[in-house]
Formats: sequence, C-alpha cells, structure tokens
Amino acid sequence: MKKRTLLMIPGPIEFEPAVLSAMGDPTTSHLAPSFIEAFGESQEQLRQVFNSSSGQPLVLAGSGTLAMDCAGANLVEPGDKALVINTGYFSERFAAILQRYGAMVTILPVQVGGRPDLEQIKSALEAESYKLMTITHVDTSTGVMAEVQQVSELGQKYGVLVIVDGVCSVAGEELQMDAWGVDLALTASQKAIGVPPGLALLMIGPRAMQKFQKRTTPVLNYYADWTNWLPIMQAYEARKPGYFGTPPVNLIFALHVSLGQILAEGIPKRCARHRAISRACKAGVQALGLSQVPLKPEFAAHTLTAPRFPQGVNGAEFLAGVLKAGVTLAGGLYPTIRTEYFRIGHMGAATLADILVTISAIESALAGCGHKFIPNVGVEAAQAVAKKTS
Amino acid sequence: MKKRTLLMIPGPIEFEPAVLSAMGDPTTSHLAPSFIEAFGESQEQLRQVFNSSSGQPLVLAGSGTLAMDCAGANLVEPGDKALVINTGYFSERFAAILQRYGAMVTILPVQVGGRPDLEQIKSALEAESYKLMTITHVDTSTGVMAEVQQVSELGQKYGVLVIVDGVCSVAGEELQMDAWGVDLALTASQKAIGVPPGLALLMIGPRAMQKFQKRTTPVLNYYADWTNWLPIMQAYEARKPGYFGTPPVNLIFALHVSLGQILAEGIPKRCARHRAISRACKAGVQALGLSQVPLKPEFAAHTLTAPRFPQGVNGAEFLAGVLKAGVTLAGGLYPTIRTEYFRIGHMGAATLADILVTISAIESALAGCGHKFIPNVGVEAAQAVAKKTS
Repeated sequence: MKKRTLLMIPGPIEFEPAVLSAMGDPTTSHLAPSFIEAFGESQEQLRQVFNSSSGQPLVLAGSGTLAMDCAGANLVEPGDKALVINTGYFSERFAAILQRYGAMVTILPVQVGGRPDLEQIKSALEAESYKLMTITHVDTSTGVMAEVQQVSELGQKYGVLVIVDGVCSVAGEELQMDAWGVDLALTASQKAIGVPPGLALLMIGPRAMQKFQKRTTPVLNYYADWTNWLPIMQAYEARKPGYFGTPPVNLIFALHVSLGQILAEGIPKRCARHRAISRACKAGVQALGLSQVPLKPEFAAHTLTAPRFPQGVNGAEFLAGVLKAGVTLAGGLYPTIRTEYFRIGHMGAATLADILVTISAIESALAGCGHKFIPNVGVEAAQAVAKKTS
Repeated sequence: MKKRTLLMIPGPIEFEPAVLSAMGDPTTSHLAPSFIEAFGESQEQLRQVFNSSSGQPLVLAGSGTLAMDCAGANLVEPGDKALVINTGYFSERFAAILQRYGAMVTILPVQVGGRPDLEQIKSALEAESYKLMTITHVDTSTGVMAEVQQVSELGQKYGVLVIVDGVCSVAGEELQMDAWGVDLALTASQKAIGVPPGLALLMIGPRAMQKFQKRTTPVLNYYADWTNWLPIMQAYEARKPGYFGTPPVNLIFALHVSLGQILAEGIPKRCARHRAISRACKAGVQALGLSQVPLKPEFAAHTLTAPRFPQGVNGAEFLAGVLKAGVTLAGGLYPTIRTEYFRIGHMGAATLADILVTISAIESALAGCGHKFIPNVGVEAAQAVAKKTS
C-alpha cells in the first residue's frame, strides 16, 4: 500500500522520480567539477525556460518569498514609486516587500477573484510616474492569472520597470520575458519548475540590472544583495568555482535534472499540456456545480483551479474526505474568503490521469458532505474535455 | 567503481545514508500530518542539540550566511554598538552584516590564526557599552576555535547580548547555550548537523527575543524578519499547520532524521568523537611536517584541520593529487593566506577510518609534490593517537 496520497496542491507538487533521485544522491563538494557543470548548465537552461536570452539567472537557497524579497531589496530605493497589479494575497505580499525597502506603493484595487483591467492600469500609469510595477502572473491564493504580455507592454510604454512574480507560472504558463518586455521574473522550485521546495530563482533582465547598478543607496538586505551573488553565478556559468555562501548542492542537481526534462518536453508543448489538463479539471468541477474564485473563466490560471465549496458543504470535512480518497488538496488562502474555497494544483509532472483521480476524489468527498450531483458527472466532463484536446 | 571521492571538506560533508534517503523521498504537502510531526519534533530536538531549554528554534530555507543575516537583521537597530570577536573570514562577514543594518561595529584586531585573548575582550567591554557581540565558535576559514564559554560569560557580565556563529561547530563542538549565557546561536545544515546544504538554523534565547520584541525600528529585511516566522515555528511545534512561505520539506525531513541520529549518539559522546578524530588528523599532518593556521594548538577547532603547505609544495598540484587518491579536500579561504594552506573537514558522520584514508591521500599527494617525509609516518601518527583515545 502506498504510504502517501497523490499531491495535488499548488506546490509542492508531485515530482519526477529522476528529480527525487538527484535529491538523494550523495552530496558533492560545491566546487566539484560535476557540480560546477550542473550549476553552470542550469543557468543556460533557465534562460531558455524564462525565454530570456540576455537575462542574468540567480539561484539562491530560499523560498519563493525570498525570490520576491530579493527583487524588492535590490531594485527599490527609499522613496521610489511602485505600482502593484493586485490579483490576490501574493500581490499584496509584494506590496509589503516593496514598502519594507522604502517604496511608496500604489495597489490597484480589485474585487477578490478579479484582476485590474488594462484601462485601469493605463490610467494609473498616466496619472503617476512609477519606477517599477509588479505583476503576479498567477496568484496562488486566488487562481487568477494576470495579462502579463499586455501589462508588460504598457509598463514598457510608460518606462516602468516590469517585475513578474512567476512563482506559480514559470514552466507552466507561457512567459516570454524578452518578447513581452519583462525586466525581471522570479519563481520557486516547488511549483511548475518541478523541484522540491528550497530554491528561489530569478532572471534579471538588462534594464533591471542597469537600475541595480545605478543605485545610489545600499541594498538593505545582506543575504539577498546581488553584489554578493552575481560574481558567483557568473563564475559557475563560466565553469569556474566561486564562493559566497554554500549553494544547496542537492537541490541544484535536482534542478538541473528537472530543467533538462522541461526543455526536452519543450516549453510551448509543456504550456499546452498545462492548459489541457487545466481545462479538464475546470470542466470537472463545473459539472459538479462548483463555481470558481476567478470571476471570469478568462481570469483563471492553468496551473491551479480554485473551486468554491457548494452551499452547505463544510470545507474541513470535504478536504478530509478527499484525503480519505487518496488525494491531498489545499484549502483556501486569501483571508476574506479563506473557508469558502479550495485549491487544486496541476503543474509539472501532473497528468490527465491525476486530474481524473482528483475529480473522482472530489466527487467522493462531496457525496460524503451531502452535496447532490449525478454520480461520475465530474469525471465524465473532465474526460470529455480531455478527449477533445487530445 | 565509486563515482565519487570521500568528501572531507568543512561542509558539505559525508552524509548518512538515512539522511540522503529522506532527501529523496517523495515530497509531502507542507501541511501533511507526517511533515507537521517531523518539523515539530525537529524543533524539540534542536533545543537539545543547542543545549537551550528555553530557546526558540527557527528553521529557514537558506545558507549559513542567511542564518547570520537573520540574527543581524532582527537584533540590530541603526546606531547600535557591536563588538566582533575576530577569528577569521566569517567573523569579518558578521561585522559586514551588522554594519549593513546600521550597527557601529568594533572588530577586535587579531593576527591570522590567532584569537583575541580574554583580557583584550574584557578591556574592550570596559571601554565601551555594546548592545551585542558576535563570537565565531569555529571560523571555517582559519580553523580557529573561540573560547565561547569564557567570552559569553564576560558578555553576560557586561550586559551584552551574546551571539554565537556556530556554523562550523553546532553538534560537533561543545556548546552549552543556557549554561554559558549564549543569547543566540546559529548554524547551517551541511556541517556537523549532517544534512545537505539549504537550511539556516537559529536558536533564539529569551534575552535575544526580548531585545527583538522591544525594537523601535522595523526590521530592514523582509524574508528574515522573525515577525513572519515565529508564529509558523510555534504552530508546527504545537503540531498545527502554519504558512508564511513554503518550508523546504525534503530538507526538513532529512534534518529530522539527522537530529534523531545525533541525539541517539548523544551530544557529549559526539563531541568527544569529534575531538578524537581531530586529534588523530592533527597528529597525522604534524608528523608529516606540516604546521597549521591556528597559531597555538589550543586555538584549533575539532571540526576541521587547516594545515599549511610545506615549503615548495604547490597548492593546486597538491589538491589535485589528493583528489587523484580519492579524497576531496578544500583549499584556503582567508584572503591574505589563501594559497598557503588547505582545509580538512571532519564532522558529522566522519570516522577515524576516513581520517586514515585522508592522511594517506595527503601523503600520496605530498610525495607527488616532492615533499620529503618517512612513508606512512602520518598515517602511523594518526593511528597511534587513535589507539590512545579508543
């Protein structure tokens, strides 16, 4: 009997066996030739994954929040004006980070499950001169996806540095850093990148690097200071040893394996797969009569689904029922609606079969909670959509 | 044929198979009961390892430098006076961290390989009123061990907050936080704690916590801010879920395994074992005619040995020879003497057999470099010391 359940939360996710195997390999020196090669090549691979030919990769031991903090600490100087395109909890966290480093932050107001529309963003950019803006590509708290391409293009038009929080998107949702004018994008290892949690990943575009180099005040964070890490990243990419802090060797070997798998599948194909299983999942929950947190279907991300509980269904009881059926799902995260919804992650190695198992477990739990629906209607709806796309 | 060499650097070290196995286990949710239990129990175990009954553990994804940064960012307010007991590169790094957060730092001057003596420290504490002092228990760059007990007692006498960088000491060198009056101690996973790199570990004593709680200025660093993490640590220890950032699940499961092994051996026995293999190692290199960076034998740490190259031996050629003999050693790190010495780590799972293999590899490399010595004299000296202590 399997000791564990199918992990369908929005990170950590189910990881590929080869990635887990690299995690458990005997650790080498951080200066061993095999590690230097893996770390060096990982940087080249990251440029491809981020679609950024001229970006500077940065890989740090830390969580996704460190990646956000690292962007904020190095790009904000006290008094800078910043615009936050708000789509949920993680957009608000970015605002808090920018404020911590002295930014004067404008948060575009939005209804929970909504996203600021382009006119609203344009008006904000017309009304004030911002140094930088942040876009949460996929806000893991609401399942809302931002229009990164259009918003980035607006940002570039108004001369604003565009920072994309891609924690729940990179390697799962389409992201064209160079083509769309994204100046910095960041993510964490445990989502669509497909590596256990513990790595913060940034891709620093040339304009962001210039802003950093032209700082007139010190970075107010020691560990995250790019000054410490850029020579190290550049050394490893040149296949030379470097030392500032000990890199998380096993995680980076695992990253190297996962990036190889991601590029072998190909980013366009991988994003298409994420869209396909997302459609199947969303069709399944819709057929069961569940609405979703994103206010419109086109707002919804493809890396997770955020269904609302139907009337009368108790969230804790529901999640326990899903777990009993062999699947781990996540509860709500956005404070004001926390108990009203749940979250299904479908990233990385997730397959259509995983979605069917998940929808089936959801049916089982809903039935246990007294929710009325035609048995198997969710699974059939997911299958029907899957057939259409395959 | 083994694909890898024996890893005898001062971190990462050779890890126990059960620890590596935990690293490669399928990742659970960070809210799964099994993870909550492992993370909760790890905190209780950490208190035992640090000999701190009333400390608050803090476990973060990050390197040892993050642990230092985390202490500095949360305990320093602009204008605070700080005293750094300098024993090498990492003492100087702590000074740089404290300065980053606005401290006015006094670094006690010291010759490379030396350590400030107690009279010198006492004079410094008499001459100025400091808020905090930092002691590098073992400076990995020089192999010098500080007199933590005596210096901490002095610190307490003068009402100074005592912070111990135990990156290269905790679980290898004796450290009695409560009994010695250490207010905060920190380490990283990849040294004597015996877990692959990627975890920053802190133990915050009650006086340090009070100082933090009485801050009148905000913590200048977002990710490292204790305000974000303390409720999470407390939740997990109460065996309840909590969320701020995704914890590095696999590393924490591995930590749980390693802490269990450490406590099964027992801290006093483990420290005695580290002292015994250290004596054997140092006897071996001494018999080969190599001096050491620490200026006096009593300054030398037990978690690593830092021998100087004999006259005429080229460092790069020597290290390549050691590697060819199947052992990975580390070069020098302290800038002014970088090319003049090398470092042997002997922490965690390291055994006397590992020391003998290492000394043998050193002999082989020295012979290749033209250094004259009686063949096997190093190995025999190490064995002789080992026999005496066993």
